[in-house]
This record gives sequence, C-alpha cells and structure tokens, in this order.
Amino acid sequence: MKRTAVRLADGRELIYFDRRADADRSAPDTRRLPPRPPASELRHDPVLDEWVVMAGHRQDRTFLPPADRCPLCPSAPGRPSEVPAADYDVVVFGNRFPAFGPVPGESADPGGLSAARPGLGRCEVVCFTSRHDASFADLSPEQVELVLAAWTDRTVALAALPGVEQVFCFENRGLEIGVTLAHPHGQIYAYPYVTPRTRRMLENAARYRERTGGNLFADILRAERKAGVRVVAENAHWTAFVPAAARWPFEVHLYLNRQVPDLAALEPAERAAFGPIYTELLRRLDGLFGVPMPYVAAWHQAPVRTGRDLAYLHLQLFSTRRAPDKLKHLAGSESAMGAFVNDVLPEQAARMLRDVRLGPPGGPRG
Amino acid sequence: MKRTAVRLADGRELIYFDRRADADRSAPDTRRLPPRPPASELRHDPVLDEWVVMAGHRQDRTFLPPADRCPLCPSAPGRPSEVPAADYDVVVFGNRFPAFGPVPGESADPGGLSAARPGLGRCEVVCFTSRHDASFADLSPEQVELVLAAWTDRTVALAALPGVEQVFCFENRGLEIGVTLAHPHGQIYAYPYVTPRTRRMLENAARYRERTGGNLFADILRAERKAGVRVVAENAHWTAFVPAAARWPFEVHLYLNRQVPDLAALEPAERAAFGPIYTELLRRLDGLFGVPMPYVAAWHQAPVRTGRDLAYLHLQLFSTRRAPDKLKHLAGSESAMGAFVNDVLPEQAARMLRDVRLGPPGGPRG
Repeated sequence: MKRTAVRLADGRELIYFDRRADADRSAPDTRRLPPRPPASELRHDPVLDEWVVMAGHRQDRTFLPPADRCPLCPSAPGRPSEVPAADYDVVVFGNRFPAFGPVPGESADPGGLSAARPGLGRCEVVCFTSRHDASFADLSPEQVELVLAAWTDRTVALAALPGVEQVFCFENRGLEIGVTLAHPHGQIYAYPYVTPRTRRMLENAARYRERTGGNLFADILRAERKAGVRVVAENAHWTAFVPAAARWPFEVHLYLNRQVPDLAALEPAERAAFGPIYTELLRRLDGLFGVPMPYVAAWHQAPVRTGRDLAYLHLQLFSTRRAPDKLKHLAGSESAMGAFVNDVLPEQAARMLRDVRLGPPGGPRG
Repeated sequence: MKRTAVRLADGRELIYFDRRADADRSAPDTRRLPPRPPASELRHDPVLDEWVVMAGHRQDRTFLPPADRCPLCPSAPGRPSEVPAADYDVVVFGNRFPAFGPVPGESADPGGLSAARPGLGRCEVVCFTSRHDASFADLSPEQVELVLAAWTDRTVALAALPGVEQVFCFENRGLEIGVTLAHPHGQIYAYPYVTPRTRRMLENAARYRERTGGNLFADILRAERKAGVRVVAENAHWTAFVPAAARWPFEVHLYLNRQVPDLAALEPAERAAFGPIYTELLRRLDGLFGVPMPYVAAWHQAPVRTGRDLAYLHLQLFSTRRAPDKLKHLAGSESAMGAFVNDVLPEQAARMLRDVRLGPPGGPRG
C-alpha cells in the first residue's frame, strides 16, 4: 500500500491510499476556496452531563448536488472536485463543513448553567471508491482491506492529536437518514470528549467486571454463539449477531472473536477476513426488501486514554427501515425518554437476514 | 368537568372528559374487535443497562388511513370509530396496538446475556379535540385545561397500577417523525421501569444537590431567566427557554416557576396559565418557516417511586426541522455514539422564535 499526503487549497489534509506503488499523486488543487470555518462550540448539558456540539456553519453544507458535480468524484478537466487526482483507490480528507475542526473560534460565555469550550478535533471524509454509483457492499475484498487500512491509519494519527479523546469511523448510507452526498463514503470523527454512549458502555463493563470478573463484551459474544438463534454469519475471526435487546428493526453487531481495543490491534488474517463477512452482511441487508437499505455502520473502538482494557472492538450496523415502505422513527418515547420500542423481534430479524438468497458478490443485488 | 368511563368492545377502557355535565355518553361500541394482543416483551440490554421493548404485533398497526375512516373521529352512522359517541370534547382510551399492555404474554428465555420479562403497563391515546383538521395550537384555553385535566387524571390513575414506575404524557406531531394518524392526538405511556433519560436526569440532579445543595432544574431556570437571551416567552407561572446546550434545531423547555414533581401538583392558577403560553409556543414554532412543524412535546414528570424530591415538572418541545426544506436526522454520531451535533445556535433559535409575528389565536397561521 502506498500512502500519499497532500494539502488542499484551503490547507486541509488529503491522503491517498493506493494499491499501486506507482500512483501519481502530484495533481494540485486548482480551486480557490474560502478559509476554513472556525471550530464549532461545545456546550455542556448539566441535565444529562453530556457535551453537545453547536455547529451553526454546517447549515450551509453541500446538499444533494447533481451527480456531475459530485465533490467526492475524482477531478476532471474543468471540473475540480475535493479530490485533485483523476482517479483514486481510497482517499481521506478533512471535512469542509466539520463538526470539529482545528481552527479555534471565538467563544463567549453562553450564560445559564452550561459551560462552553471550543469544539477542537477533526472530522474527515473517507471515499470508499472512486465509482460514484457503487456501494460498500459492492467492494472487492482487496478494496475493503484498503479502506480498513485507511481507517486504521486515521485512528492512530487522530488519537495522537492533542485533545482528541475518541476516534469514531462510521458510514451513514441513504437519503432516509439524511445523507447529503450519494457517492459511497464514510466519515471519521475525532471527538474532544468520550461520547455519551461509549462512556455508559464502559461504566457498565467496569461494573460487570467487578461483579463477575469477566469482560462484558466477550461474555455477550460467547452467550450469543452458544444461543445461536440470533447469529447471522460467522467465519474464523468474526461473528455477526442481532443483539438480544436490539433497538433497531434490523441491527447486527459484528464482533472480532478476541478482545482488542481498536482497529490498530487487528492481525493481518483478521483484516483479510473482515471484508468478506461485512460485505455479505450488507448484501443481506439490501436483500431483505429488494431495495437499498438506509443504514448506519459504526465502529466502536476504545477511547484514547480511558477504558482501553474494558473496550472490545466491534462494528454496529443498523437500519431504520422496518418494512418495505416503512421507516422506524425516533419519536417521543425514544427521543425524549431514551426508551426504545422495537417492532421486529431480534430472532425474527436474524432469521430474515439469514434467509436472504445472495447472488455472487459484486453482481446484481436485491 | 364531567368524567365518564366506559368499555370498548374488546375490553379496553375509554374515558370521556366533558365540559358539560349533561353530555350523553351511553353510546355503545358496536364493532366486533379481535381480542387484545398480549403484552410485548422487555429485554435488558447489558451493554447500556437499559430495557428495550420488543413489540412485534405493532407492525400491523393502522397506518395513515384516509380522513373519512379516521379511528379517532367520533363515530357516525355506519362508520364506527374508536370513540362510540357522535361527538366529544376530550377522550382517552387504551391503545389498540400498545407497546405496554395489561395482558401477560408468553415469554421464553431469549438466551444470550439478556434478561427478559413481560412488558406489562399501559399505552393510552388522548384525542385533544374531535376536530380532525385542528392542531393543538388551535385549541382554546378552556380546551387545553380540559386536556390538562385528562393528563392529570391519567397520571394519577396509571401511577396507582401495580408495576407502573413512570407515566409519560406526550404528543408526536407530523408525518416527518412517523405519526401514523393525522387527527390531533397524544399518547400516554405507563412504563414498568424508569426510562433511561429520566434515570440519568435524576442521577445528575442527585449529584448536583450533593455538590451545591440546590435543585438542578430550579437553578437552570434561575440562570436562564437571568441570562435572558434564550427566553422565548413567559407569564406569571411559566417560563419557556431554549436550553443552552439544546440538542435539536428548535427546542424549547417550558418550566413551571416552582418545583413540583408532576401534573397532579399544579394549582388552578397554574393550570389556567398553561394553555395560553403553550399554544403561543406552538404557534411560534409553526410560524418559523410558514409550514406546520413536526414536533415532539414531552412532559417530564417524576417517576412513581423514586427521585420525587429531585424531579421538576417541565415540558420539552422540539422539532426536527432545521430549515424550510431540511430535517435534522439522527445519523452515526447521534444514533451510535449519543453525541449530538446541533446546526442552529440556541440563542439564534430563541431569537427566531421570539421574532415570529403571531396572528390572533385560532386564526390563520404561518
């Protein structure tokens, strides 16, 4: 793998991850770009003891551009995009409309009972392929390994930045969940705090270890493998199951079969085994109703400085689609009370996912 | 106020709340209804230490019926609805497709590391008016007082049921957040557990009292009234402000000016003062972009048995619409990490809400 870091016209970093060692990455960014916006502001919510990001400048972000002006496609003559080169394998760059940025903004005391501080951190975009109409499910195993290498590179690099407490690699897919660019891409957030869900997971894992001496996640994996009824797919290194208390109509957790804190700790054989099972899961998801499913795919990694012995690398994949023509919305019970109501039984969801008849990888789907 | 309780054909309770003492509530439910479905199942998620409701039977619930078959309108000759009478003021009845019901189902051990138990509790529907095309913002102060009386009645009655730990009165409004019936109505959930958000609120309130001796919510209200910049409306008994760390593009919290645990503790003057300020807030919300806004309105009340000295009755009102043509979606950061990014600054949201020019109540809006 060849890694080439360049700078875009406004100073943002862009990194090419190439399979070929002779890839030419000398093309300059010819655009005139406005200066980068200052970082957003963090506000502390004393009611829930959580940080919330205030990112007013993101209101103006690029919204569903036509395919011939996609900012994530390679540049073409007379049509420069975010990626200067004429083609690429995988590319990562700083988000132009970031929730967390490197440029400190001015922050006034908001008054009230809430503390505030600058939202310093990073938000990056990962283009999974240069093919505008592809999806992650279509990627070859080699291409997935390259994406995994990019995620790993960024996890290590961003964790080393001052103030970064957690690195989160994820993909939002589908207009239904608010994706504003159709080109297959994911995002990486380097948070200046440990996120609320991770904090709670690790608090529970600490209590579990006190009580039982075991690792919460390892014991869940063992129990799910024993129960079997919610397992969707497995191979020598990974196991995918629907959690017994799934919150979403179709939710799958993909666990490595041993405990590691983050992507950097994966062995080569584990890396090679990831792509086939993950793209199989995505194709099973898309095969459920014969329509591309909206989904969130979220890597749960250990925070940078805390809970690294308790955390357990896993990927959480879930869709908000509960039926061919119906979405699961978070309304009063979920949004205001945090109390989830799931309309699809986990055992039924697992069976439906197992029963999807798959075509060959990369072939026609549905 | 006259209160009349009757039974529907399948045994569910229905209660009329009438302004007139001579309202005739003798009309029977003439439908043949299938037996009520068994209660859903609760599953414990050990990763977050939270209960999740598994309610498979809700997949078949009524979905956007045409207006002439609305189940929440009064019954008409040859067209029986959920409400047997030919007209009503306010009516409450058991949800036909409840997340929590009174009928125990069979529950098998789900295996894995998750405990399970029956989802016993109640889910009720509150029809705010018999006028199909109205919205809560259109209600007269007298009508709002009647709704408030119904909420209070149900809060007291449901809290007295065995196993009920928390009563939640709320309204989901708008197709955009998944509302499946257009008729103006709200819901009441009587949970057999303290919801995750309430538990965290009360844990933080307990820590705050230990640290400062004060009540967290009372001190937030005092600080917001002093800061002023986020206050949207106020009267002698209520104050409405955008929280300094708001999670949603347009979010308003309506606090009573003194600490009480729940709706049952409201004095008559406080009840009378609620309708005018709340419908003003709703009209300000609808006036922001000249289109009816999707919203969730959520009453935060004390749980039945815990934290009653710490809790502070308030109503949380928020919309997911961030611009005339754009919704706020919960994608990766919010859904998988609990880390909210808000694109509208709270001070800006408060100013926009204050600046809405209101017509007369009940008149044309927008």
